[in-house]
Amino acid sequence: MPSPLPRIVIVGGGFGGLSAAKALGQAPVSVTLVDRRNHHLFQPLLYQVATAGLGAIDIAEPIRRILRRQANTTVLLAEVTGIDVTARQVVLAGGEHLPYDFLIVAAGAGHAYFGHDEWEAHAPGLKTIDDALEIRRRILRAFERAELAGSDAERRFWLTITIVGGGPTGAELAGAIAELARHTLAREFRRFDPAETRILLVEAGERILPTYPEPLSRKAQVQLERLGVEVRTGAIVTAVDAGGVDLGEEQVPTGTVLWAAGVAASPLGASLGAPLDGQGRVVVEPDLSIPHHPEVTVIGDLASVSGAGGAIPAVAPAAIQMGRHAAAGILRRIDGGEPEAFRYVDRGSMATLGRKAAVAVIGRAHVWGLAAWLSWLFVHIFFLIGFRNRAVVLFEWTRSYLTYSRSARLILEHPAPEEPEPPSPPTP
Amino acid sequence: MPSPLPRIVIVGGGFGGLSAAKALGQAPVSVTLVDRRNHHLFQPLLYQVATAGLGAIDIAEPIRRILRRQANTTVLLAEVTGIDVTARQVVLAGGEHLPYDFLIVAAGAGHAYFGHDEWEAHAPGLKTIDDALEIRRRILRAFERAELAGSDAERRFWLTITIVGGGPTGAELAGAIAELARHTLAREFRRFDPAETRILLVEAGERILPTYPEPLSRKAQVQLERLGVEVRTGAIVTAVDAGGVDLGEEQVPTGTVLWAAGVAASPLGASLGAPLDGQGRVVVEPDLSIPHHPEVTVIGDLASVSGAGGAIPAVAPAAIQMGRHAAAGILRRIDGGEPEAFRYVDRGSMATLGRKAAVAVIGRAHVWGLAAWLSWLFVHIFFLIGFRNRAVVLFEWTRSYLTYSRSARLILEHPAPEEPEPPSPPTP
Repeated sequence: MPSPLPRIVIVGGGFGGLSAAKALGQAPVSVTLVDRRNHHLFQPLLYQVATAGLGAIDIAEPIRRILRRQANTTVLLAEVTGIDVTARQVVLAGGEHLPYDFLIVAAGAGHAYFGHDEWEAHAPGLKTIDDALEIRRRILRAFERAELAGSDAERRFWLTITIVGGGPTGAELAGAIAELARHTLAREFRRFDPAETRILLVEAGERILPTYPEPLSRKAQVQLERLGVEVRTGAIVTAVDAGGVDLGEEQVPTGTVLWAAGVAASPLGASLGAPLDGQGRVVVEPDLSIPHHPEVTVIGDLASVSGAGGAIPAVAPAAIQMGRHAAAGILRRIDGGEPEAFRYVDRGSMATLGRKAAVAVIGRAHVWGLAAWLSWLFVHIFFLIGFRNRAVVLFEWTRSYLTYSRSARLILEHPAPEEPEPPSPPTP
Repeated sequence: MPSPLPRIVIVGGGFGGLSAAKALGQAPVSVTLVDRRNHHLFQPLLYQVATAGLGAIDIAEPIRRILRRQANTTVLLAEVTGIDVTARQVVLAGGEHLPYDFLIVAAGAGHAYFGHDEWEAHAPGLKTIDDALEIRRRILRAFERAELAGSDAERRFWLTITIVGGGPTGAELAGAIAELARHTLAREFRRFDPAETRILLVEAGERILPTYPEPLSRKAQVQLERLGVEVRTGAIVTAVDAGGVDLGEEQVPTGTVLWAAGVAASPLGASLGAPLDGQGRVVVEPDLSIPHHPEVTVIGDLASVSGAGGAIPAVAPAAIQMGRHAAAGILRRIDGGEPEAFRYVDRGSMATLGRKAAVAVIGRAHVWGLAAWLSWLFVHIFFLIGFRNRAVVLFEWTRSYLTYSRSARLILEHPAPEEPEPPSPPTP
């Protein structure tokens, strides 16, 4: 009888977990990937779902479909409630225990409200498809409420949209909302002009896109202002409630507040017993394993890795590289080899700011305007998963470029509450 | 000063309300269309959203976008809470009153559970996009639960899907679910074969598709059985709960129950003070107005109309014809003319039953198999609203025909509960 295959469990089907699973697809191992959602999400385009430019299905693909040809891989839709590194088991919400020989934790990050969790109800963040649909609902609903408003003050309230956080997510949201208000919705309302919409981008630091070189931050701000976005740097949000945001020097009545300011690592990191950094991320060894447990690897946004070039950013390419490195490290270990240190290859970063404008760092080059925008289009179409999604997104963007239309202007209601589960599994 | 334009209020943006609004677009009147959703829905393809074949945005279009070029028309997203035919006002949930000179009520219908409203939580119906997304979530989740099941009985529970009601909606759902299980999901699970799925179509009458000629009902049943659907006619559902359905002779443990059995007219009909029929529909005069109120017209699924050829069916073409008739009647009345009786032109009906099979009545001809299926495709692409939707749906269907794939296999969670509203409109 052959010896049983080494069991590898991967927690999370984002960029990191999926690239690890793919890298293990042909190896003589047994892989189980667990995610609490059934789909892999192309997060760089999530802001387009939130602003009605793309549909949810255009940027999400079922994980089990992506991995269906890997006969050695099982995909489970389940919430991981704990990890027991001593017993080498992952515990699922239903009670099932998944024993492992090697574990890859790629559980990512959520929103952080800096100790003000009560702000979340008034200022949703953008991490999941459900977040994006909720933001889309609030933005589109705000314009509908403006059409129904009984006073000018109420109309101004609904026509003010505040985005907290001037990183790539906040800047891209602000640009897309400006295009929506100024172009897509033009001539669709009878009681106001959507171009009156006030879009406020609030950043606590001294410039937006703080991880970009300073000249590109300045160009990004100019471009957003050209679209009609009011950029407020050095402004601290001291309160968020149903009436609006408080910026200290100014109280802004605003019908819609979006949160793009803080990120908190998944709480699963804490269950590993390894040291955490200030953002709750797991501080890993150079080979991405945790201290005393070479069989446990942490990758993606949950990992705190310092290389020769400083901290590694929480971006998709870094997660993908870590996933491949983790898979290769496990296979090397199974063959009796020694792990290698992870080395991040930075190929650049880019953010789009409305139509025909973007900023990008490609290698050592700074690119902006139309050239950056075209690079952005090409890169995002190229890396999207699935022929269908590439074709549909290319179609939507071409159409949107020609007509300013946005196809996904659908306000969904809240579905019915979860129906009760069967009290116990039925007996035969 | 010119005399003010006649005010026409339309309640509902479905097929009936929208066709009335379009027919009034160039007339010297002031039109207000109110709907509680922001989109017009192409309901004949709703079952494809529920079975992951199409995305929500492919069959829904913002009403205000469709009517944006009609300068005489205002669109409001609001719930109508009442109609005061004496004061000639429509009352909106926010408190606003819309006075009218002419009113068109096209509020449609919802689900009926025959006095068992407690079944709804366990057996969702299919009328709105939110319904479709909830059904999609339950179907896809059932397969995920089957992969996690701890026993064979639990797996069989999740792999049993019961559809109550053998009309067009039930039959189309059953066929599409059978294709999903037998083809789309093949080879994606490791612990069971999705082809084992038991799909039960329960019909209380003696044949499915009871409004179709009997030979077509028989052909439809044969086609569904060929796809693996178990058709149970003459079977009454006596109970539905979290454990399954009770058919009297048999208790069926079933993880997913879908409701396609009963329709109830909108409760708004009752506020008109006109006679209602057994299904709660408003019994209208031959010209579609209500007794004693020639200025109030009821159309679409909410109207109970008997013509020379018997009752008019609750289908999209009938609603569209009624909408045009109502608009023309109002314009004639404004010009001092007399109303005419509505005459329904029946151009046929069709239902699709999986791949390459459908049944259709076209004029006096009975059509089935591939010919009916191709007619169905052509008609549905042709009548879809919007170039984008036609292009994307044609693309999805071609791709699905070639590969059996279904693009919209996304399980959405329930979004966060509604955030609290601002306590009162902010004062300037």
